[in-house]
Amino acid sequence: MMELNVTVPPAGSQPPGQEQQAAGAGILLQISMLVLSFVLGHLLRRHKFYYLPEASASLLIGLVVGGFANVSKTEMNLRKWFNFHEEFFFLFLLPPIIFQSGFSLAPKPFFSNFGAIITFAILGTFIASVITGLLVYLGGLIFIMYRLPLVECMMFGALISATDPVTVLSIFQELGTDMNLYALVFGESVLNDAVAISLYRTMSSVRSHASSGQHFFVLIVRFLETFIGSMSSGVGVGFISALLFKYAGLDVDNLQNLECCLFVLFPYFSYMLAEGLGLSGIVSILFTGVVMKHYTFSNLSESSQHFVAAFFHLISSLAETFIFIYMGFDIAIEQHSLSHVGFIFFSILFIVVARAANVFSCAYLVNLARPSNQQIPMKHQKALWYSGLRGAMAFALALQSVHDLPEGHGKTIFTATTAIVVLTVLLIGGSTGTVLESLEVVGDVHDDLVGESFEESNGYIAPSYDEGASSGSRLRTRLQEFHRSAASFTALDKNYLTPFFTSQYDESEDLDEQPQRTRRAGFRGH
Amino acid sequence: MMELNVTVPPAGSQPPGQEQQAAGAGILLQISMLVLSFVLGHLLRRHKFYYLPEASASLLIGLVVGGFANVSKTEMNLRKWFNFHEEFFFLFLLPPIIFQSGFSLAPKPFFSNFGAIITFAILGTFIASVITGLLVYLGGLIFIMYRLPLVECMMFGALISATDPVTVLSIFQELGTDMNLYALVFGESVLNDAVAISLYRTMSSVRSHASSGQHFFVLIVRFLETFIGSMSSGVGVGFISALLFKYAGLDVDNLQNLECCLFVLFPYFSYMLAEGLGLSGIVSILFTGVVMKHYTFSNLSESSQHFVAAFFHLISSLAETFIFIYMGFDIAIEQHSLSHVGFIFFSILFIVVARAANVFSCAYLVNLARPSNQQIPMKHQKALWYSGLRGAMAFALALQSVHDLPEGHGKTIFTATTAIVVLTVLLIGGSTGTVLESLEVVGDVHDDLVGESFEESNGYIAPSYDEGASSGSRLRTRLQEFHRSAASFTALDKNYLTPFFTSQYDESEDLDEQPQRTRRAGFRGH
Repeated sequence: MMELNVTVPPAGSQPPGQEQQAAGAGILLQISMLVLSFVLGHLLRRHKFYYLPEASASLLIGLVVGGFANVSKTEMNLRKWFNFHEEFFFLFLLPPIIFQSGFSLAPKPFFSNFGAIITFAILGTFIASVITGLLVYLGGLIFIMYRLPLVECMMFGALISATDPVTVLSIFQELGTDMNLYALVFGESVLNDAVAISLYRTMSSVRSHASSGQHFFVLIVRFLETFIGSMSSGVGVGFISALLFKYAGLDVDNLQNLECCLFVLFPYFSYMLAEGLGLSGIVSILFTGVVMKHYTFSNLSESSQHFVAAFFHLISSLAETFIFIYMGFDIAIEQHSLSHVGFIFFSILFIVVARAANVFSCAYLVNLARPSNQQIPMKHQKALWYSGLRGAMAFALALQSVHDLPEGHGKTIFTATTAIVVLTVLLIGGSTGTVLESLEVVGDVHDDLVGESFEESNGYIAPSYDEGASSGSRLRTRLQEFHRSAASFTALDKNYLTPFFTSQYDESEDLDEQPQRTRRAGFRGH
Repeated sequence: MMELNVTVPPAGSQPPGQEQQAAGAGILLQISMLVLSFVLGHLLRRHKFYYLPEASASLLIGLVVGGFANVSKTEMNLRKWFNFHEEFFFLFLLPPIIFQSGFSLAPKPFFSNFGAIITFAILGTFIASVITGLLVYLGGLIFIMYRLPLVECMMFGALISATDPVTVLSIFQELGTDMNLYALVFGESVLNDAVAISLYRTMSSVRSHASSGQHFFVLIVRFLETFIGSMSSGVGVGFISALLFKYAGLDVDNLQNLECCLFVLFPYFSYMLAEGLGLSGIVSILFTGVVMKHYTFSNLSESSQHFVAAFFHLISSLAETFIFIYMGFDIAIEQHSLSHVGFIFFSILFIVVARAANVFSCAYLVNLARPSNQQIPMKHQKALWYSGLRGAMAFALALQSVHDLPEGHGKTIFTATTAIVVLTVLLIGGSTGTVLESLEVVGDVHDDLVGESFEESNGYIAPSYDEGASSGSRLRTRLQEFHRSAASFTALDKNYLTPFFTSQYDESEDLDEQPQRTRRAGFRGH
């Protein structure tokens, strides 16, 4: 992608005109694959063939074209056509995907499960990263896999712990599921990206300043610096946008274009502000997405609301499809050595174990804090465990690691990650429908999800705690205090933030939910 | 733009982290300038300050920031921050602008003025290019300006003849004007780009195969090859998209995202197909825009129609604003020699003369063919002459010429073109309101434009010719035949093409006009 070789100096024996022509043909191929993916995904969905979700279809198309590229190596070098610039990835593909994941969080169920989601995302991801990292390190020590230094194992552990919700959530949407499970899976996988990135960056900085990296305390401070710094910058930009749209008076019908132009510039602004400050743009744009959806969005005129919701959905699905195609293509043309295969096999084993440790231990903690009628049932825990496939975020960090780490190490991590993404998407993605059905977490609550609004289906969530959870150990009391503070955050939001940052408080709740619900219903309507 | 220097090898003394940070800050600056441009443009329009149209405001912002960059050269090298990749320009900025200009052509008045528009765009642009080229060559011969070989003068003549409608049209929209004048100015400036590109490419290929370039006949064939080839590929892709959307049955409400994804991929497909075939992507995407608006658009579901219209409007205004900012910035930081100033001064003189020759001679021919009640009045001719400012397209071709021509020549053409664009936008753009008012072509027909549909205001256009234009020389007869064939094209469209390529013929006309009219009304509503 990206090369219309106008600037690039003599990159071969061909005259520049032909270079340009070849680049055009390459992009043409990519666009055709995109179109094909969308059409194939649509056909599969229409025929309710859940064993091959859209992401898998894109991967397979990439695999097939990559296979052809391998065979026909001599004459037309397809690989050269498919050149993929990382700056294109980091500037144009990744930001819309991450923003959209924040932007499409339904605020209500997200906030009412806030405590649980935070536990899974922060503590859980931390557990999963450390366990994966340690196991990979041990695997290297006993020679069953490629040997990496401890800190690089930790980097790998962090990046491979970034889960991707897309495929599982789209199956949830097709089949219908409990709103709380949906919120848990979605919220966890969204916030977990932010934590995984921060962990990765912390480990990476430890690696480059190896001397000072011994203190565990320093690590924690670095992590908090990245995480809280990026989050604050993202939330700050989001709040500024909310105030701008509240007071600028742009929600008049004939200013739609201006309104939308400004709206779509803000996420990018947030991304670049964080990068400029040396923080994580991805984490920042994620929180900007959450805040802009929750506050700014309701300050827009109605037609602009429809537009921006469709706009971000459109560009993120284009970007995501493209990335999956690329990953399939990359796996097909990559030269695989035996050490890679071993590394991939054991890594998959380890991440399954690590995710089990993450989900079941965090669920235990959350259940300690919740009253008995609001426990997370075992089948939900299993569904959460099962839904941890890897996607674009892990791929992005692996791409980064190629530059952060020495030649062989980075390459191994990159290849392993791509393979893990492809395998988990194909295997887990293909079997999710069956597994979720056998766990009985889909289908039965069908009407809840669509027919009623979120408020009504809030059954066991948003605990009131006024009933006085008397019995319990000290840990339980602590946890309940934490959960109470999450609940008080909801109150803060309702009483102060929402009135301050939005113009039409009464309507805003309905407006917020609207596109989300329509889309969900849309996915399942055929 | 575009550098998140992940891939780029050691580009300085800074560590890669800081590189990335600096790039982030650079893009941040660009986004801030974009936001500022939109806000400033909006304020100016709201206060009806027509001396500084939006494009000029963007240019001025670029000039000011560029000025700062010049002053503070030592510490923070702003110029490095503002690195502008040409591939970014040709892949992401230019295609949406050109597509949008084709896509926003209102089909009715465009087709009913088809003959006149074709005359101005093809014959007129040819005349203007040749005259400008010859004058610049003569200027070089008598030492009043930088001396270029004849073929390079012709290339310059071609690229500088690509006019830009944006500023003038937005003033027309603000003030209201005759529908026919609007269609002439818009249609001419849109198609004229295609002709200018084809001429430029023809001359460029003559330059690289200097031996065979002597035959005038070969030139004509080359020109037709590029023009007709690119046009056919664009029209072909447009027709395919129309059929796809007619028969795929995607216009169900819940498939909006799929529908829009496919729709926005087609223009890009057309662009890359033409580039891959060695033709002009720009010309191709332009005609794809015209065809997709006229046929494909009406096969979309209603919500998708609203979305794609807003989508292309959004990205093209972002791209356009960015280009104008960049041009201002570039002029401010460029090192200007005295030879450049002379070249710029005389070039402006020559293009004014050449455009006069273009407009008045073509108008004479058109008037010969039209019955007396349908003549193009002198004040319209003057308005057409005056509205020939230069914009993004000339800039793009000048950027190209830097690579096509030897060092000093390309640089001179690029600098001169940028300066001409900036000056014409500032001077002509600023005075258009006043001049058009003094010509009495704006304001008076206010109600015609908004209140009535295009059909009703078709007063003197779309000549029926059945009345039998008896008197006339042979030339006149010929011209009238040509015009009759243009009219029969309208009939062909109405009777065969539209029913074949669209699903709802009866509605399609209304649907086609809708967004166009809304937007125009929108611009003027405050």
